[in-house]
Amino acid sequence: MRLHDASQRAFASDNYAGAHPEVLAAIADANGGHQTSYGEDAYTERLNEVVREQFGDQAEAFPVFNGTGANVLALTAVLPRWGAVVATSTSHIHNDEGGAPERMTGLKLFLVPTPDGKLTPELIATEARGFGDEHRAQPLAVSITQSTELGTVYSVAEVRAVSDFAHANGMAVHMDGARLWNAAAALDAPFRDFTTDAGVDVVSFGGTKNGLLGAEAVVVLDPAKADGLVYLRKLTMQLGSKMRFLSAQLLALFEDDLGLRSARHANEMALRLRSALAGADGIQFSQPTHANALFAVLPPAVTARLHDQFRFYDWNASTGEVRWMCSFDTTETDIDTFAAAILAELAA
Amino acid sequence: MRLHDASQRAFASDNYAGAHPEVLAAIADANGGHQTSYGEDAYTERLNEVVREQFGDQAEAFPVFNGTGANVLALTAVLPRWGAVVATSTSHIHNDEGGAPERMTGLKLFLVPTPDGKLTPELIATEARGFGDEHRAQPLAVSITQSTELGTVYSVAEVRAVSDFAHANGMAVHMDGARLWNAAAALDAPFRDFTTDAGVDVVSFGGTKNGLLGAEAVVVLDPAKADGLVYLRKLTMQLGSKMRFLSAQLLALFEDDLGLRSARHANEMALRLRSALAGADGIQFSQPTHANALFAVLPPAVTARLHDQFRFYDWNASTGEVRWMCSFDTTETDIDTFAAAILAELAA
Amino acid sequence: MRLHDASQRAFASDNYAGAHPEVLAAIADANGGHQTSYGEDAYTERLNEVVREQFGDQAEAFPVFNGTGANVLALTAVLPRWGAVVATSTSHIHNDEGGAPERMTGLKLFLVPTPDGKLTPELIATEARGFGDEHRAQPLAVSITQSTELGTVYSVAEVRAVSDFAHANGMAVHMDGARLWNAAAALDAPFRDFTTDAGVDVVSFGGTKNGLLGAEAVVVLDPAKADGLVYLRKLTMQLGSKMRFLSAQLLALFEDDLGLRSARHANEMALRLRSALAGADGIQFSQPTHANALFAVLPPAVTARLHDQFRFYDWNASTGEVRWMCSFDTTETDIDTFAAAILAELAA
Amino acid sequence: MRLHDASQRAFASDNYAGAHPEVLAAIADANGGHQTSYGEDAYTERLNEVVREQFGDQAEAFPVFNGTGANVLALTAVLPRWGAVVATSTSHIHNDEGGAPERMTGLKLFLVPTPDGKLTPELIATEARGFGDEHRAQPLAVSITQSTELGTVYSVAEVRAVSDFAHANGMAVHMDGARLWNAAAALDAPFRDFTTDAGVDVVSFGGTKNGLLGAEAVVVLDPAKADGLVYLRKLTMQLGSKMRFLSAQLLALFEDDLGLRSARHANEMALRLRSALAGADGIQFSQPTHANALFAVLPPAVTARLHDQFRFYDWNASTGEVRWMCSFDTTETDIDTFAAAILAELAA
Repeated sequence: MRLHDASQRAFASDNYAGAHPEVLAAIADANGGHQTSYGEDAYTERLNEVVREQFGDQAEAFPVFNGTGANVLALTAVLPRWGAVVATSTSHIHNDEGGAPERMTGLKLFLVPTPDGKLTPELIATEARGFGDEHRAQPLAVSITQSTELGTVYSVAEVRAVSDFAHANGMAVHMDGARLWNAAAALDAPFRDFTTDAGVDVVSFGGTKNGLLGAEAVVVLDPAKADGLVYLRKLTMQLGSKMRFLSAQLLALFEDDLGLRSARHANEMALRLRSALAGADGIQFSQPTHANALFAVLPPAVTARLHDQFRFYDWNASTGEVRWMCSFDTTETDIDTFAAAILAELAA
Repeated sequence: MRLHDASQRAFASDNYAGAHPEVLAAIADANGGHQTSYGEDAYTERLNEVVREQFGDQAEAFPVFNGTGANVLALTAVLPRWGAVVATSTSHIHNDEGGAPERMTGLKLFLVPTPDGKLTPELIATEARGFGDEHRAQPLAVSITQSTELGTVYSVAEVRAVSDFAHANGMAVHMDGARLWNAAAALDAPFRDFTTDAGVDVVSFGGTKNGLLGAEAVVVLDPAKADGLVYLRKLTMQLGSKMRFLSAQLLALFEDDLGLRSARHANEMALRLRSALAGADGIQFSQPTHANALFAVLPPAVTARLHDQFRFYDWNASTGEVRWMCSFDTTETDIDTFAAAILAELAA
Repeated sequence: MRLHDASQRAFASDNYAGAHPEVLAAIADANGGHQTSYGEDAYTERLNEVVREQFGDQAEAFPVFNGTGANVLALTAVLPRWGAVVATSTSHIHNDEGGAPERMTGLKLFLVPTPDGKLTPELIATEARGFGDEHRAQPLAVSITQSTELGTVYSVAEVRAVSDFAHANGMAVHMDGARLWNAAAALDAPFRDFTTDAGVDVVSFGGTKNGLLGAEAVVVLDPAKADGLVYLRKLTMQLGSKMRFLSAQLLALFEDDLGLRSARHANEMALRLRSALAGADGIQFSQPTHANALFAVLPPAVTARLHDQFRFYDWNASTGEVRWMCSFDTTETDIDTFAAAILAELAA
Repeated sequence: MRLHDASQRAFASDNYAGAHPEVLAAIADANGGHQTSYGEDAYTERLNEVVREQFGDQAEAFPVFNGTGANVLALTAVLPRWGAVVATSTSHIHNDEGGAPERMTGLKLFLVPTPDGKLTPELIATEARGFGDEHRAQPLAVSITQSTELGTVYSVAEVRAVSDFAHANGMAVHMDGARLWNAAAALDAPFRDFTTDAGVDVVSFGGTKNGLLGAEAVVVLDPAKADGLVYLRKLTMQLGSKMRFLSAQLLALFEDDLGLRSARHANEMALRLRSALAGADGIQFSQPTHANALFAVLPPAVTARLHDQFRFYDWNASTGEVRWMCSFDTTETDIDTFAAAILAELAA
């Protein structure tokens, strides 16, 4: 029963998009007959093989339901009960998770403002202090987002710098990779280069925003740093019974380069939009466009008129900043139509 | 990519089964184009219409990922921070959720042993005490499971009796309905009869164990008793971004009676197995077979030989009790083959 | 400003009593001038010396405010986030802490009924199972109470048996010693004999119920089993700023045998009451009287008349069981008057 | 047994000081005989009478052990599970409580930098947003500290402005009054003027830093905003058994103006120090001196030499800022000696 108009697309979020048809096909393949539940199935086993190929021999994947679950599980696994997380003030774990990190497992956050959504050793240092002082929650993890909530991408060297600083201070490194595929596409680099080999200890590996129905995974890169994952996944309510279907979705992204194809396309659509608007009067891009998101400042009246025709997010009402997000199914025509409308409204 | 033998089935759990083909078709229908994420989509809207038809005008559905999530969310919503839950000592929330109720939202459990997995006013009364005493966690909710973890089903009158006692004591009533469809099939009654109209305040509405990929919902029947559900779902990490796909799965169960057909079939297969084994020497059924689960006591040697051929659960190692579970895709041949093997091993 | 009648005493609880005068003197000695806060003071340092003398060279004391705080801190320190505690169904942590263990640090409890408030290997074994199964909270600690909530005392051999079983199963051993002094007096044994040397890993060391204003301590006996105590004490809100006064109180119990004198006296008063009532018609003692509490079953009408004259607790309304508690300041006259009244009412 | 030099005093913290002799006397008065535990005693009853006189007829006091406990309890009582707190980035609840607010009851903090430790409507507005958006923890309380962690004091009008803004936005107002007496002395105003009558809903009422052994209280000013305090105090492990001694300490502060006398003296000593140093070369005061704390920036070498002779806190190592704290027992000679030393080192 179809209840919606499947020809409509928006620039609001990559989770407004549906699932890639190849993902549905992968689910159908995984269906039929009985498979042991809770992860003792052939698809989860195969996912772990692929994850080891991609992230290194020590890597282990723990499929979960959503990004908040992945982040909370990953951070909890690398922190003692007295641990705290240094993250950016624009991080998803602070702004968009309803307080789940604090409320579910008592994760204290130390937040640092950044110009571009990226932490640096200097920025981390402002909160990486008070070690050994029982009055201060112990900042024993750094969480960075790749690609960031502001559409920027850490270079391999930038990740490395964060990890080196973190490890030198006894802190674990978590990467919120809700859009890790977009980062991989932007960097044109294997996952391993900017995760395992750059010193990251645990990754929230995203899939939903890149064309899955709904599946993410915690990928542990340094097992010595993350204890009790199987118990923690269960108690954080992120253990799926028919896990074969979560794993099959994640596996699909590695088949025929589906994940990379989809992310590369989304990134290209963002750049296409940026190019189309380059130099236009009345618009200022507030962030570089490394991945699939654009951030721009527009006159409020223009934004209001665009909202009548297209779905997108107001990012900062006080500055007039908006966010435009592309996804795997954004078409060139979508971009060209949107760009033309923006230019027309700017000129109006 | 198919990695498993789709002709293999087991009697271990209804979550070893996959998804009903009609469910996959419903997901494909819900796919394509963009839909607002986090529940502002056409499928979630329609799900709520159906839920109101089924559970009454006040009912509201909050799709979530899994049963533990549904139970914790539902119970948290009806309890203050000082609340506690009276449940059976065989309840899923106590035995099979890794402590999630206690750890995620601080739910204290008061557990009551029962012969058949069912609470009664008398049993609840043993823990429904100490109201107003700050030293005792306040038992302000009762949680019953329908059908129960022991394969039994509460009659409408039994649910009513629990609710009346609970309400008279200021307690809310939660029903863990991971197998609510099996109960509906067993009772041959509309959901409303044994939930809303029997005084239940909030239901964990199951789908996964009845042929979905993975989708459950908290259904609030008395909104006056459950506050802040939208916030609580988010902070318990149970808010799906592409919710249309959770809702579409749940909706599929109401299309052409799929849910009822599937549950009825599973129940019938359980009865078929019971009938086939009736009167056999060496086997004792330890519970009535109301729904899709059988509980029986077998000689350990028989159980061991059966384990070589079939997957099923040892329920109680000390007594030799086993559990056999049927699902929507259990065939008559599966049953007949299994029954023949059991009889052969009993006779061996 | 005195607002109460200091000549009135009751049999309700040893925390109805005030503070021993020697304790007030110790506080006055610790007063004056400045001392580093939060435990870097001379009294806490000395307390640790005494604790090492009493419990062994590895022992370390962490003063806290109250018994619930001590229990939650101690158990949290020996358990991972997925750990659970096996305890008696009559334990204080289950019945009298408002759900603090579950709510504050997510401690799951597995409760075992006992005849006399004491766990045994056989009883623990009923819940010490499911190790490695992520669905079951992992029972990685045993908590025993010494003297128990039912007034009984574990012998050294009984503690040893519990510890041996626990350790053999990878479980830590916690002793709730809210009345540890009464146990020491009853056993006529050094603390070390029935704690460190009997395999206990961490103790909630009580003081308040034995004549302090209010001070308890977590005493870690096996530091390898308890990590991050200083951080955990702070985050569980049990870190006192002017800790010298908590430590001075605890120290006072070790001066001139004050703690032992007080506890021995309270125990003797309980035995005096028991002797006075021995053989009386209409009263049945429901527990042995090892320490300072008596449990007896009386006709309800007798209990009601006694309540008009004396404060004490109804322990079990359904059976008519009452609890009579003696404290450091209970006098022989108090006992004799009370015994006479009980005998009179029984005879009435 | 005295183990310390009672003639030594420092400028490190008002909790390095001991207890005022009148407080010890009050405890001795409250001692003797039996009093019902957990708050049903004559001293707690009287405390509540006094609190009503001081804070208004609706006020109710809940004695607790320490400031962290008071803050967590107070904020939890005014917030739903999805609530968050707007506070300053220098607040005690953020910096000095080991993450207790987040970990114990899941309180999410939204932190605002301030020049002087004080929130204003404009500053609160930067985080008082996203109401109704389930992705954002709901900022439903404001927490201000009086006097602040930076030694400043809110005027009555400033508190009023905060409360008006908060209430207009559906937020409750919490005042962390660890040094409320110092604020009262500084403002020369009754508590009621700058709490109840200025729109504050709940206060953490401090005593320890003003000459108690250790006692604080949550004082609820608007009972409609704070539910379940008795249960919450118990489950946050802040319920003292022999509560008469906590209440007697708090009462002592109201006897013969002891609290006001002590706080006024401490404030005067701070001003005396400030005056003595006014205009000296090489020292810059970084905050106004409203209460009993001074904040100053000194050359690191001077600070180092002063540390050899006196105990005080380095507040900000990167700027050279130090904190000097006076207490009830700081003498004029202490100040004059310290001032002379500072001047000498500055001149060296």
